[in-house]
Amino acid sequence: MSEITKTDRTRVKRLPGRGAYDRDTIELILDEALIAHVGFEHEGAPAMIPTAHWRMGEWVYIHGSSKNRMLLSLKDGVSCCLCVTLLDGLVLARSTFHHSMNYRSVIIYGQAEEVTDPVHKLAALEAFSERLAPGRWAEVRGPNRQELKATRVLSLPITEASAKIRSGPPIDDEPDYALPVWAGVVPIRLTVGEPVPDPRLPGEIAIPGHARHLD
Amino acid sequence: MSEITKTDRTRVKRLPGRGAYDRDTIELILDEALIAHVGFEHEGAPAMIPTAHWRMGEWVYIHGSSKNRMLLSLKDGVSCCLCVTLLDGLVLARSTFHHSMNYRSVIIYGQAEEVTDPVHKLAALEAFSERLAPGRWAEVRGPNRQELKATRVLSLPITEASAKIRSGPPIDDEPDYALPVWAGVVPIRLTVGEPVPDPRLPGEIAIPGHARHLD
Repeated sequence: MSEITKTDRTRVKRLPGRGAYDRDTIELILDEALIAHVGFEHEGAPAMIPTAHWRMGEWVYIHGSSKNRMLLSLKDGVSCCLCVTLLDGLVLARSTFHHSMNYRSVIIYGQAEEVTDPVHKLAALEAFSERLAPGRWAEVRGPNRQELKATRVLSLPITEASAKIRSGPPIDDEPDYALPVWAGVVPIRLTVGEPVPDPRLPGEIAIPGHARHLD
Repeated sequence: MSEITKTDRTRVKRLPGRGAYDRDTIELILDEALIAHVGFEHEGAPAMIPTAHWRMGEWVYIHGSSKNRMLLSLKDGVSCCLCVTLLDGLVLARSTFHHSMNYRSVIIYGQAEEVTDPVHKLAALEAFSERLAPGRWAEVRGPNRQELKATRVLSLPITEASAKIRSGPPIDDEPDYALPVWAGVVPIRLTVGEPVPDPRLPGEIAIPGHARHLD
């Protein structure tokens, strides 16, 4: 199990038992999450943008329009952080104080780098597509030169990173276990619905398997 | 419809048609989301923490341990931002370039303020509990003086805020509509599962209605 070296800002200080620093745990959370929030400074104040992300090896990737102000800010290597959070449940305890949530989150600190090499850039975009809808990349019209130019891809190394996890039932104060109140966990998860065809789609084109890949 | 005044940083610049500035839209998104990400500067670098949030009137609230470093940083009124994102679907287009996601997000910029008034603080915590499990607050053991002291509550005014929304089918380049490839939306949403009783719960205590409130 490969451990990521803790730094002062990745070490989980409050409830340190919830911290995890092994690469496998961090990668699993990054891979399950569909959305990341990226934090950066913009004109002297904290700013944040939600964006899709994906992982290739020891890097997390994000992308967007070449004109996107976040990507413009980040491509020159300013400090940023990227966080993903999977909400797993509400934890209903016997006292208000011990109510909680079950979750798995990852935070990465670092500097992003623009992917300018055309082969690397195309491979990264394909990996993103394949992660969400395997096989689709080969079926749709690929990006032309102008579209690639209009797309910026950034990578952020998973070097300064940690996970934080809470799972399991509520932990109540011992005397409160005698209270006649229901306690437990309300599970929460993302679910995928029946694919909705584009109104302009000819009726004879069936829903492909990859449209149910996340299910 | 009450419009929130746009500022340079809340105005949606890329794809401005996706921006929304009316208070109703912003409040609905804040109220549906169960998790927010809060961005702030910590020791000269961008930092971010995922946390539960709730709304009362024109303020968003967050809370945590009195020792939580984010709340400690924020209570003195440094600049921060708070973002919530609801992922509604994958948008599968006929070209890689026009793939997208349907989502509703809100960003708020501002300074948080600590809620120190004891009546306000208790009312805020009750509102949070009632939002997730209506009626539960009256059934469980309420917070004692020590627990209230160990809990910090902050409020952030919804004054500099905007929403960003994408919905509907893919928008493809006109010639691509002729391609024989499935296109449409894969809906995604949070779902709530069957409540899981605490292993230490006596069998005779039934699952309360509020444990299914989010369903």
